[in-house]
Amino acid sequence: MAKVGILMGSDSDLPVMKKAADMLEKFGIEYEMTIISAHRMPDVFVDYATKAEERGVEVIIAGAGGAAHLPGMCAALFDLPVIGIPIHTKSLGGVCWFFFVFQKPSRVSVGGRDSLYSIVQMPSGIPVATVAIDGAANAAILAAKMLSISDKDLRAKLKDYKKEMKDGVMAKAEKLDKLGHDKYIEQM
Amino acid sequence: MAKVGILMGSDSDLPVMKKAADMLEKFGIEYEMTIISAHRMPDVFVDYATKAEERGVEVIIAGAGGAAHLPGMCAALFDLPVIGIPIHTKSLGGVCWFFFVFQKPSRVSVGGRDSLYSIVQMPSGIPVATVAIDGAANAAILAAKMLSISDKDLRAKLKDYKKEMKDGVMAKAEKLDKLGHDKYIEQM
Amino acid sequence: MAKVGILMGSDSDLPVMKKAADMLEKFGIEYEMTIISAHRMPDVFVDYATKAEERGVEVIIAGAGGAAHLPGMCAALFDLPVIGIPIHTKSLGGVCWFFFVFQKPSRVSVGGRDSLYSIVQMPSGIPVATVAIDGAANAAILAAKMLSISDKDLRAKLKDYKKEMKDGVMAKAEKLDKLGHDKYIEQM
Amino acid sequence: MAKVGILMGSDSDLPVMKKAADMLEKFGIEYEMTIISAHRMPDVFVDYATKAEERGVEVIIAGAGGAAHLPGMCAALFDLPVIGIPIHTKSLGGVCWFFFVFQKPSRVSVGGRDSLYSIVQMPSGIPVATVAIDGAANAAILAAKMLSISDKDLRAKLKDYKKEMKDGVMAKAEKLDKLGHDKYIEQM
Amino acid sequence: MAKVGILMGSDSDLPVMKKAADMLEKFGIEYEMTIISAHRMPDVFVDYATKAEERGVEVIIAGAGGAAHLPGMCAALFDLPVIGIPIHTKSLGGVCWFFFVFQKPSRVSVGGRDSLYSIVQMPSGIPVATVAIDGAANAAILAAKMLSISDKDLRAKLKDYKKEMKDGVMAKAEKLDKLGHDKYIEQM
Amino acid sequence: MAKVGILMGSDSDLPVMKKAADMLEKFGIEYEMTIISAHRMPDVFVDYATKAEERGVEVIIAGAGGAAHLPGMCAALFDLPVIGIPIHTKSLGGVCWFFFVFQKPSRVSVGGRDSLYSIVQMPSGIPVATVAIDGAANAAILAAKMLSISDKDLRAKLKDYKKEMKDGVMAKAEKLDKLGHDKYIEQM
Amino acid sequence: MAKVGILMGSDSDLPVMKKAADMLEKFGIEYEMTIISAHRMPDVFVDYATKAEERGVEVIIAGAGGAAHLPGMCAALFDLPVIGIPIHTKSLGGVCWFFFVFQKPSRVSVGGRDSLYSIVQMPSGIPVATVAIDGAANAAILAAKMLSISDKDLRAKLKDYKKEMKDGVMAKAEKLDKLGHDKYIEQM
Amino acid sequence: MAKVGILMGSDSDLPVMKKAADMLEKFGIEYEMTIISAHRMPDVFVDYATKAEERGVEVIIAGAGGAAHLPGMCAALFDLPVIGIPIHTKSLGGVCWFFFVFQKPSRVSVGGRDSLYSIVQMPSGIPVATVAIDGAANAAILAAKMLSISDKDLRAKLKDYKKEMKDGVMAKAEKLDKLGHDKYIEQM
Repeated sequence: MAKVGILMGSDSDLPVMKKAADMLEKFGIEYEMTIISAHRMPDVFVDYATKAEERGVEVIIAGAGGAAHLPGMCAALFDLPVIGIPIHTKSLGGVCWFFFVFQKPSRVSVGGRDSLYSIVQMPSGIPVATVAIDGAANAAILAAKMLSISDKDLRAKLKDYKKEMKDGVMAKAEKLDKLGHDKYIEQM
Repeated sequence: MAKVGILMGSDSDLPVMKKAADMLEKFGIEYEMTIISAHRMPDVFVDYATKAEERGVEVIIAGAGGAAHLPGMCAALFDLPVIGIPIHTKSLGGVCWFFFVFQKPSRVSVGGRDSLYSIVQMPSGIPVATVAIDGAANAAILAAKMLSISDKDLRAKLKDYKKEMKDGVMAKAEKLDKLGHDKYIEQM
Repeated sequence: MAKVGILMGSDSDLPVMKKAADMLEKFGIEYEMTIISAHRMPDVFVDYATKAEERGVEVIIAGAGGAAHLPGMCAALFDLPVIGIPIHTKSLGGVCWFFFVFQKPSRVSVGGRDSLYSIVQMPSGIPVATVAIDGAANAAILAAKMLSISDKDLRAKLKDYKKEMKDGVMAKAEKLDKLGHDKYIEQM
Repeated sequence: MAKVGILMGSDSDLPVMKKAADMLEKFGIEYEMTIISAHRMPDVFVDYATKAEERGVEVIIAGAGGAAHLPGMCAALFDLPVIGIPIHTKSLGGVCWFFFVFQKPSRVSVGGRDSLYSIVQMPSGIPVATVAIDGAANAAILAAKMLSISDKDLRAKLKDYKKEMKDGVMAKAEKLDKLGHDKYIEQM
Repeated sequence: MAKVGILMGSDSDLPVMKKAADMLEKFGIEYEMTIISAHRMPDVFVDYATKAEERGVEVIIAGAGGAAHLPGMCAALFDLPVIGIPIHTKSLGGVCWFFFVFQKPSRVSVGGRDSLYSIVQMPSGIPVATVAIDGAANAAILAAKMLSISDKDLRAKLKDYKKEMKDGVMAKAEKLDKLGHDKYIEQM
Repeated sequence: MAKVGILMGSDSDLPVMKKAADMLEKFGIEYEMTIISAHRMPDVFVDYATKAEERGVEVIIAGAGGAAHLPGMCAALFDLPVIGIPIHTKSLGGVCWFFFVFQKPSRVSVGGRDSLYSIVQMPSGIPVATVAIDGAANAAILAAKMLSISDKDLRAKLKDYKKEMKDGVMAKAEKLDKLGHDKYIEQM
Repeated sequence: MAKVGILMGSDSDLPVMKKAADMLEKFGIEYEMTIISAHRMPDVFVDYATKAEERGVEVIIAGAGGAAHLPGMCAALFDLPVIGIPIHTKSLGGVCWFFFVFQKPSRVSVGGRDSLYSIVQMPSGIPVATVAIDGAANAAILAAKMLSISDKDLRAKLKDYKKEMKDGVMAKAEKLDKLGHDKYIEQM
Repeated sequence: MAKVGILMGSDSDLPVMKKAADMLEKFGIEYEMTIISAHRMPDVFVDYATKAEERGVEVIIAGAGGAAHLPGMCAALFDLPVIGIPIHTKSLGGVCWFFFVFQKPSRVSVGGRDSLYSIVQMPSGIPVATVAIDGAANAAILAAKMLSISDKDLRAKLKDYKKEMKDGVMAKAEKLDKLGHDKYIEQM
């Protein structure tokens, strides 16, 4: 039974949102992931958000770009925490500048700030826990931290992950110390 | 029977939204105006937006601030044009700086840009006709222009209003010419 | 007889504006499309905007970038609705970074915000119905929504299009459910 | 035993942060509130953040302005969820413009965006659950939602609060309907 | 015969634009000043801008706010230099915060940046000489510098003015040196 | 004898500034162009700007990026008009993203806005006639317009250029009309 | 003999800059403070900045607003460290909104960002040590830290000041703990 | 014994930070460079920053991106000057747009402004000497200038470097004069 629901408004957000899924798997947290648009299928969306709690979902992670209403509308309908990811990067259009002439996006984001403001500036009473632009991995870690309030095993896993991150940086520091910066950069 | 529905998410938007109502009255267009929050009463909101068309509403004007989802969610549910007003000014808190210490707003707008982006940057398929920040009078004129496509009398009223505006500026130009700028400013 | 006039200030806007034309064709709405510069040929422009109504044009869609005056000046001269598209993407220069050294644009947009502000922040009395940056498809849908106020057939086509969009997202959701996110991304 | 720790970097943030405390009290959640500066007393801060978990704190709410490092540094040291409030409003200086000449602030915020970016744009691995600028009430509601994952009574209180908000808006809508907008505004 | 035409789109810009007039008077340059709206009276505006050159106007100074099209449209029609002033400050509404509830502006400027971008970001071929936000005095000095290319007397006056400015700062420096900063501030 | 001096702070600005030179040549206006840094060779710079007038220079065009002080410092030293070009594009680094790893710029522009603000927001008394970001061609046209106040031949050339621009747009409009948009885009 | 030179471009910056002077006095560091404009008296300015080093000045603190060239031009001429303060607050005009109609500023700052960018975004080779907007006290502390590299007594004073700051926050934390937040706010 | 400590939060900052190291080497200043994350290894970080002074470090240069807390936290713990570099460019992800689909960054910077604000907007008492975005070379020069207050040899080297920069620009100016701009650009 999924404890975390991962939602995105468009499959173009999937390369970013995938990192939330991967991180939840790392922590062994069950999740469900789907594409659901508050604008293009409001009935399906309302149904999902209204029934998620009774299906056992404890946290919703929602990513959206531009006039990003998905996380906020989730927070209006779902009574447990909603984490919002402002999406900036598009999988196509914003990436392969070469083919840009042939495949233009229908909306141009103002550097992710439209997404960020649309998600974080919620009115009083309906909070969305907003993470960094394209910060899908952090959304999953935040969900894990929320769930770990009442789950000691998960707390331990989070502490392990923290140690892993620290070890990772320390290994890099050591490598830099050993190689010097010119060689280090060559090997990047 | 109301042809235009005027919606706002909070009564703090009323001093701005009132100007839409006043302008519609000037053109003799029937309207209904209510406070409806997509976040705080999503069921009431969905019901309103879904049934507005069959009740005869032909245009919805929606004003909202911050993470302003009301206009975009209207556009997802109502199949005729939706006009969005990004609200910046709050009736209290943002106004009487004197009493600010005692009565703080729970959210601070980043100069109206959060409202603007949340309304104008809609995804493909679900447009919102966005007007200027706090531009409620213009929202009403735009609604009148839309209705005037099939209403010759309304077109004539709009042309009269345009003439009225022009005469207003010309009277000011004449006054400036006559008084000189120092006296004109004194009388402002 | 064209019901919608599509205007752009420069042919570099054509790859974006083309999507307005394509969407109007999809709805079977007659349109005319031309390149007209309020700055470089003000007489031709004034003539076009002044006479459009009597030639039967009911909505003007105008796209422009930078100090984007075309939509607002249309709204000053044409008494029916004007829809403005803030243009960000340039067909060359802003696209093929490789050849950038050889073919520089003469003006650099500040992320589309100059275009957006120049179009949306109209003074009281002269509204422009502004859509998202590069949102040409949405401009056409908005025009269709305006025309559908008095055209029941068009309303039906818009409802079909809405269903088509919903089906599109649901098919993607199903595909994601079936393939899993890693395979889905591979196939993007 | 406090389940929520409320931190602020300066007592000038207190008029905003007070709303987090008031909201937690409304939900009957025990909290502790203190002034602690990551910059001016890093040893005290590190001690607080490191030992909070073992003292039973389950969520930290941290508000800060400008180069707002307090929430992010909490998230580096405290393994359970950290909620960050970007503070814009200063209790003096930014408020009483009259006495501004005599009592100038030592730093001027760029509209709250410096605070927002410093809190929300955290690197991968160390999320901060960011709420709206000055959104202290929402921070408390978000903390309550997190705690309610494993606390059914709290869930019920949150649902009551949601209903209360809805009833509040509906009462206003009814009043607007009864009074008309001119009288409503007079009574604001 | 006026050598400089001062235009503004609304009398609310007059308290700023007045400083252009005062500065031109200081240099003994004949000017004409009027209120003319490119949006509300396009025919009057086109007539003015088209005939200004033959009436002897050599420079146009145009101030406008929001979607500020006046300077750019002047530049499209008038073949001699056009100086644009992005207007931010409104004489009412933006000033007397006390009476704000009763007298709201119909459009809120995003800190003057909308005006600035709408004026400075002109397309290739149609330049506007843009000065600082609300920089009306500088617009007049710039006009004087342009006229002084072929007017030796005016050059001398500009050099005198420069000296006057320098003497002004040096007097202040001396006063600061004499009084010390605490006394200086008391006397401000 | 050069009537226009073209200055840039770094040769990386040359691909943009070149367009000012080309446009002046088109109008047959004599110019001199050099690289001069107000920061790296202040003595040479002060000497240039102080003596330019007596050498016959009547207008200075100065382009600079980042903390762009060159145009404003020219305006402090040179008593005739100074035109400022905010430079955004760098000839390398900002262009060939492929080689970016090997050849990093030492400063990253915030979208040209740092350059724009540093040039346009001059204090009272010292105006800089600012054109669009990277708007070097417009800077030259503006210089030509200034010189044409007392040069009837140049006025005629400017009117010819204006006609040429208009003919150019009209030819494109005709081509679009003939080819249709799909074929037109193919040929771009 | 002054070790620190405090410069400002206008006496309107004095209420901010005064805090740099007061802080230096607190540390017993000799300073000189004057008003000097790089734009209005470039010869006096160049003379000051060129000769400061030989007069014994070891650090220059320069505050400026808008197109703030003073700190950067100091850094071009003075070979020891230059600290730049982006000034936002004006002593009049930006303060007493009541008298705003009668006493308008000649330039409107875009929230201090124009000052910040003009100071911090210096080209390679000519750094300015930039502090927060209106951060004059911090500029003085930074100067003290620089001088303390070779001055053990000053280091001790800086450590004392740090302790004083810490004690200040701890006293407030204690007071908040004792009074509770409602009483604390009343006494603010 | 290292006099300057160069810190970065992630090895992705190394291609930028390397320029600080190279510049210090040019001046013969001993330095140490390491990767240290205030968020991922706060204990290691606190230890480093607390003990740096007694190990002989006299200046710390810290670069960080996004919610960039490293420089400010250094300034809280280290009593001598801290220089902060707002990092924008990422060595991968932000560079090779081609491979972007496969290797997405976990956080998207809003054009470097998040980094800039997080570093420069420090509260009173804890200054960070901020340089331009990605301005690592300037950070090293600033460190050298600070050290040169009490080191005459270093002052001489800085004056030599300044002359070298001037000669470099003058050589380019000469080359431009000789080749003309078209040939110059070809050879770039």
